[in-house]
Amino acid sequence: MSDGALVVDNIGLLITNDPSLGHGPLGQLDDASVVIEDDTVVAVGPAGAVADVRIDAEGACVLPGFVDSHTHLVFAGDRAEEFTARMAGQPYDGGGIRVTTDATRSASTTTLDRLVQARLGEAHRAGTTTIEIKSGYGLNIDDEARTLEIASAHSDETTFLGAHLVPTEYQSRVDEYVDLVCGPMLERAAPHARWIDAFCEVGAFDVDQCRAVLEAGRAAGLGLRLHGNQLGVSGGVRLAVECGCASVDHCTYLDDADIDALAGSDTVATFLPAADFSTRQQYPDARRVLDAGVTVAIASNCNPGSSYTTSISFCLALAVREMGMTIDEAVYAATAGGASALRRHDVGRLSIGAKGHLVILDAPTHHHLAYRPGVPLIRQTIGPLARYNI
Amino acid sequence: MSDGALVVDNIGLLITNDPSLGHGPLGQLDDASVVIEDDTVVAVGPAGAVADVRIDAEGACVLPGFVDSHTHLVFAGDRAEEFTARMAGQPYDGGGIRVTTDATRSASTTTLDRLVQARLGEAHRAGTTTIEIKSGYGLNIDDEARTLEIASAHSDETTFLGAHLVPTEYQSRVDEYVDLVCGPMLERAAPHARWIDAFCEVGAFDVDQCRAVLEAGRAAGLGLRLHGNQLGVSGGVRLAVECGCASVDHCTYLDDADIDALAGSDTVATFLPAADFSTRQQYPDARRVLDAGVTVAIASNCNPGSSYTTSISFCLALAVREMGMTIDEAVYAATAGGASALRRHDVGRLSIGAKGHLVILDAPTHHHLAYRPGVPLIRQTIGPLARYNI
Repeated sequence: MSDGALVVDNIGLLITNDPSLGHGPLGQLDDASVVIEDDTVVAVGPAGAVADVRIDAEGACVLPGFVDSHTHLVFAGDRAEEFTARMAGQPYDGGGIRVTTDATRSASTTTLDRLVQARLGEAHRAGTTTIEIKSGYGLNIDDEARTLEIASAHSDETTFLGAHLVPTEYQSRVDEYVDLVCGPMLERAAPHARWIDAFCEVGAFDVDQCRAVLEAGRAAGLGLRLHGNQLGVSGGVRLAVECGCASVDHCTYLDDADIDALAGSDTVATFLPAADFSTRQQYPDARRVLDAGVTVAIASNCNPGSSYTTSISFCLALAVREMGMTIDEAVYAATAGGASALRRHDVGRLSIGAKGHLVILDAPTHHHLAYRPGVPLIRQTIGPLARYNI
Repeated sequence: MSDGALVVDNIGLLITNDPSLGHGPLGQLDDASVVIEDDTVVAVGPAGAVADVRIDAEGACVLPGFVDSHTHLVFAGDRAEEFTARMAGQPYDGGGIRVTTDATRSASTTTLDRLVQARLGEAHRAGTTTIEIKSGYGLNIDDEARTLEIASAHSDETTFLGAHLVPTEYQSRVDEYVDLVCGPMLERAAPHARWIDAFCEVGAFDVDQCRAVLEAGRAAGLGLRLHGNQLGVSGGVRLAVECGCASVDHCTYLDDADIDALAGSDTVATFLPAADFSTRQQYPDARRVLDAGVTVAIASNCNPGSSYTTSISFCLALAVREMGMTIDEAVYAATAGGASALRRHDVGRLSIGAKGHLVILDAPTHHHLAYRPGVPLIRQTIGPLARYNI
């Protein structure tokens, strides 16, 4: 980004997500331009603004860059064999998440950093301009701190997820592992993290264990978020609301009490449809959640086990096809919704004073993101991840 | 393609689809190279071949270019509003296919040609190297001939689909329209087409009308293919087998008699999963069809009404997630299967003497095409559509 002003002009349809700037909940404008100075939107409006650098949108649709509020980008290796076996309905005990933990622990910091940068470039080309990155494949003090340090070099939105899974060496001593997470591991991790997260699910951590992790994180000055209700009604959603989490993620299984709890809270329900796709899980009923007035986000959950995609376009096409969301709702959820899940007001919208992070599509409307599934429609992404586009 | 020899070297995993060249039904080789001369594979084998031009695959997976055996690429306009309304569950009578027919008839030949070229570029970047193109939005003598002439400038695999839908002006005179299709329209279309096709479905043409169209096409020297069983058990599949069609496409609803008929025939069952996705239709049970020994293809059905995608990767990820196909079966169906649906043996496989049309992935295996859904994994496509990559 140059220091001078940049104008994106000749925009056929501009989605601002700011109803004060345009019509409808997405704040839409026809024939508009956006002026950006110092990475900040300084003007939005009719075509014709002048600036030092001009990008001609050629009549295409422009929208805020995607805010991907849930990823696990710091890992080594992949698990294509496990995915292939699962899709073929075959039993496969290749070790699951432990494969990734082992590969990540034994990878050099240089290697991990290179892998993160490659994934950030891929996300950038797919239109993402703000990205949350979790730890959770270190699962010991040094490797949790190391992976967060790598992540924090690339994003302000880093999340300590020591409570991702119980590592092999603590298999029969779960409470001891939780104490480690809440104590020395958190102490080393906190300087590199904005958030703390835990995986509240049968087979991972129960509600009381997750509450302990969240409370320790809060005491250490971290914001709170939670994985919950991916595989069943786990109590995760209600815990997230009780603790005032910014977001509870997955929300595949929700009962009426969960929806009531969310509706009376500031906790965002974040859906991860690509994980439901890649694990052949049922899809959540987002319609029910939206109709209850809950703020909804869509994120990629990029990770090698259950959702190895960086494509928010793919996620929102699934949300529309499978989860009962309209395209407008899905686009909002993947931009302003993701921002809410990170308690950010400066991204996910093109309001005056917001970050000048946006996407120019190879299409006349944002509806084409679902109408043209699988087609890479991101012509250009303007935002801080551009430096990874190598 | 230069006249000299080209080697693609340093291939980590090569999928040839030729069991005589490598292991398993996909004829896989590790650490291989492919040598191409005059657009033809002249050698496949261990690394180290020399040639005038070398492309380093950097250890990635290489497979035959996708053979997309079912598209409707020649059209003007789009129908994003109709799609958006359908996904929102709203009634919408925007005119359906007639919108596309009107827009196509009134577009200049230059405009239509430019649109086709843009779509071919998109398909090429997505890994397609052979593409079938149907008419079917002209629906009068001049416009069917004109759209086929445009298509035939870009592909040898052109299909006359005058029997796509009954145009408004013949609404109450269907048999008269069928006579037109079988007579003067076919006469003008045939010089520009290799194939004839019809849409056998309630609301389009019945079995007898489709039989008449296919028989007229055969008499005019065209190969036969059919749209059938998209919305119900229409009799299309059995008609296709009876007539010896190369392929019957959609096959979303199949009864036991349909599967028996296919299993005893040379007719390929072509699945179009992106159409089932975009119309929120059920998915076909491909497992049942494969287990009966039927040859299966996967194609995009790229068209503005029910499947506006050129991404075969997206289609095969759906086939794996939703239709009970293994990844190997889906990749085969999108390459060698598509070739069978076009009765071609020179594409869809990297046998000696086949066309040197291939894809280099940004991934170590072909399984990543489904494992990394929505991610554009096609690093480079080598094939005749390269000239559209503008």
